[in-house]
Order: sequence, then structure tokens, then C-alpha cells
Amino acid sequence: MEKWIGVVGGVGPFAGIDLLGKIAAQTAVNLDQEHLTVLNWSQPATIVDRTEFLLGQVAENPAGALAAQVQQLAKMGAGVVGIPCNTAHAPRIFNQIRAELAAANCNVQLLHMIEEVGRFLQDNLPGVTQIGVLSTTGTYQAGVYVEVLGALGFTAVLPPFSLQTEKIHPAIYDPVYGIKACGLATEQAQANLQEGIATLKVAGAEAIILGCTELPLAFSEPTAAGLPLIDPTLILARALIREANPAKLKEVIE
Amino acid sequence: MEKWIGVVGGVGPFAGIDLLGKIAAQTAVNLDQEHLTVLNWSQPATIVDRTEFLLGQVAENPAGALAAQVQQLAKMGAGVVGIPCNTAHAPRIFNQIRAELAAANCNVQLLHMIEEVGRFLQDNLPGVTQIGVLSTTGTYQAGVYVEVLGALGFTAVLPPFSLQTEKIHPAIYDPVYGIKACGLATEQAQANLQEGIATLKVAGAEAIILGCTELPLAFSEPTAAGLPLIDPTLILARALIREANPAKLKEVIE
Repeated sequence: MEKWIGVVGGVGPFAGIDLLGKIAAQTAVNLDQEHLTVLNWSQPATIVDRTEFLLGQVAENPAGALAAQVQQLAKMGAGVVGIPCNTAHAPRIFNQIRAELAAANCNVQLLHMIEEVGRFLQDNLPGVTQIGVLSTTGTYQAGVYVEVLGALGFTAVLPPFSLQTEKIHPAIYDPVYGIKACGLATEQAQANLQEGIATLKVAGAEAIILGCTELPLAFSEPTAAGLPLIDPTLILARALIREANPAKLKEVIE
Repeated sequence: MEKWIGVVGGVGPFAGIDLLGKIAAQTAVNLDQEHLTVLNWSQPATIVDRTEFLLGQVAENPAGALAAQVQQLAKMGAGVVGIPCNTAHAPRIFNQIRAELAAANCNVQLLHMIEEVGRFLQDNLPGVTQIGVLSTTGTYQAGVYVEVLGALGFTAVLPPFSLQTEKIHPAIYDPVYGIKACGLATEQAQANLQEGIATLKVAGAEAIILGCTELPLAFSEPTAAGLPLIDPTLILARALIREANPAKLKEVIE
């Protein structure tokens, strides 16, 4: 029995749409009618900024609003749900989402995007242990990737804090040239990210995780500076299809 | 009071995602949290091919499944709904959707994408009366644009039937090179469409409607052969924002 996929959209707005596109592109079909049922609930007004919460700038945990939207998707019929936002997978947020779903007796299968990335690395890049991570400063400071990858035997390689706050985070969040504000990767955002990748490579990174869902918009090639780029949104898309109906998952990433 | 936007996705799969992206891109925001609430219900397995119905190849009217999905969106809280599929706006389908919603006492505001295109032409291209239309053969034979544009005082200019069936429809539906199968516009699809536009221009067209939601994927510029290209998905996106909260509609198309 094929499960329906639920997506909590709007975190950020273009990341949710990117996930929907990757679900469609990774589904093996001959006809429109064979595509999976996908429900998207995008209500960003209720979800406070995940980074601001993790950095202590707002008190409200976005977990409450995220859990409410997961529950709405479950009520509509979704059997497996994904949240295309790296920062929402910080333990202080994601564990609280799980707790709220349990308290509400909501048994929908909620995938953990970053655990899926860890599994992907184990299966697809054997021998690689040093993983560079580009992300928001919220994800960086919360140690999301350090903790989850560490538990799976990897070492996360992060940029120095000054580079993180002056170049990487602004590539995503700067009001003038950031990907969120512009809906695309400006030249300045791309230059900042290339500098980040070069620095991570010198520090020993053997692959680069694009650890914010807006970042894949900045890269059209599967590698940068000779290192494979790992797109968690793409991995989440494939994991959602696998859980919904494995027979419809394309064998090879396209 | 801001309305929630509902989208019937999956008709076709990439067209629904394209609409969601255009809604986000046309919304004036400073923060993620200011984006509109958008609910997407994509359940393509239940919706028979609109063209096959109009051409008499299947008996079931897709209106029933489309109306059911509009009702689901209304039940979830959507106040204004769009269906990003030109062929679904053929009177034999769209009038039936309206009848089923009325019979179910569903009072959600359902926009008519092609009537919105007509309004856009009146407001933005004054003096233009001859409108070329590229579409599926289902939309072509059903006379969707001829009827709706005619009622608004325009003359629809269509390709000769042989060009329509041998070049235009296959650019969308061919299993090898068509946009639906490939998820992008192949060189062959683009060549077919350029031939169509050149023919419509010779026949007097002063603007070209990309009258199938997959077609905008084939064009990155706002004109072709010197004629303005009209994207109904973009116009539907802006109409949905206008009805949800006009203060959030970007003044100029971006």
C-alpha cells in the first residue's frame, strides 16, 4: 500500500518547493498518474526563525508550530513526512517535535533529514570520513551535523567562526545578496560559498554537505573544487519516495 | 483577513511545482514568515488525463477528481484555489467542476486561469487583439482559448492542425523528447515550439500564450521572435496572491 508523502513547506519558502521538485524528479514514472500523492502544508507565518531560536534571539521554540503542521498533514492522510529545513533538525527543536507528536498520539512516520544524510554517506562514499558542512550559523552553533554525523562515525569539518559569520551565513541570509532574499544565488553569494569550500578542503574535508536547504540553489554541478556536494534535500526526497513506495524510487540520482 | 491559497497540484507534476515557485517569487516579503499560507494537494493517480477525456479516449470526466481535491483544500482552510492546468479549463471540464462544488455547497473561490489571462491582456497589452496560442491538442480541439478570449474581444490564432499534432503536442507529450516525460525542454521540443511561434507570427499573432503549464519551462526570455510570451501559470500565481492579500502582490512581475 503506497503511503502519501507530507511536506512541511515554507521553511524556507523556496526550499519546500525545491523538495517537491526533487520528489517529482526522483520518482520513476511513465505517466503523470503514476506520481505519488504529495501534500504540502506551507504556513510560514506561524514558524519562528529556527536560527533565531537556537541563538537565543527569540524564546519560542518553533517545534510547536512545526509539530502542528506535521499533525495537519497526518490528518489529511500523509503516511510519511519530511521537513526540508536543516536547522529544524537541531536536537533542541527536532526532539521537541517528536515529543509533541507522541503526546498527541500522532504516529505518522517523520523522517530525520540529517540521519538520512549519514546513511547516504555510509552507503555511497565508503572510506570517506571527513565531511565539510556549509550551513546557517544556527545549525553551526547548535552542532547539528557534528552530533548526528559523529554518532555515525564521521568527523564534521566546519569553517572557522569568522568565515562562518562573515561569509557563509550572509550568503543565505544577507538582505541584499542572500539566497533567501533573492530567491537565487547571486554572484556575491556564490563567491562566499566557493571561499568556504576551498577553506574546508584545506582543512581536510573529502565531501561537502550543503547543510541549508537554500544552498543547492547555488550549485548546478555535483562537485565543487573536486569534492562531491551532498544535497540533504535531494536525499530527503529519495528517502520519502523509498518509504512511500520503494518500487517508484529511481535507481540512480537524476 | 488574509486568505489561504490552495493549489491542486500534479496536473502535471512539474506545473504544480512551477505555480508554487511563482507564488513565492511574486509575493512581496522581507522575511520568510511573511509568505502566504499555501496548501498543495497533489494526487495525480485519481485524475485522468484531461486531453484524453476531451478527445474521447477515456469516458471519465476528470472534473470529479479535481472537484474532490478542491473540496479537500477548502476543508483544510484554503480560501482561494487555483488549478494549474490549461486543459482542465475547457468548459466541459471546468463547468462540471463548478457544478460539483455548488452541489456540495463548497463556496471556496476557484479562480479560472484563462479568464485571468484575458484580464491580463486587456490591462497590459492595450491594442493587441490577435493572440497566438500554443497548447495541447486537447486544449486546441476543445477551443478553450478561442471561446474564452473571443468572449473578451480577442481573436485566438492557432497553428494549422498538422503542425499542432505533429510538432506542438509532441513537444509536450512525446515519450522520448516531450517536456512531461523529461521534466525539461529538450532541444527537439524547443525546435518544435520555435517553429510554432514563427508560424503564428506569420498568421498575424501579436503575442503568444504558452497555453499548457509545461510550456514555460521551454522559455527563459519574456519574448520569442519579437512577440511577448504570456505565461498563464504566472498570471494565475499573481491572481491567487491578489485574492489572498493584495498588499503582498509585487507591483511588477519579477
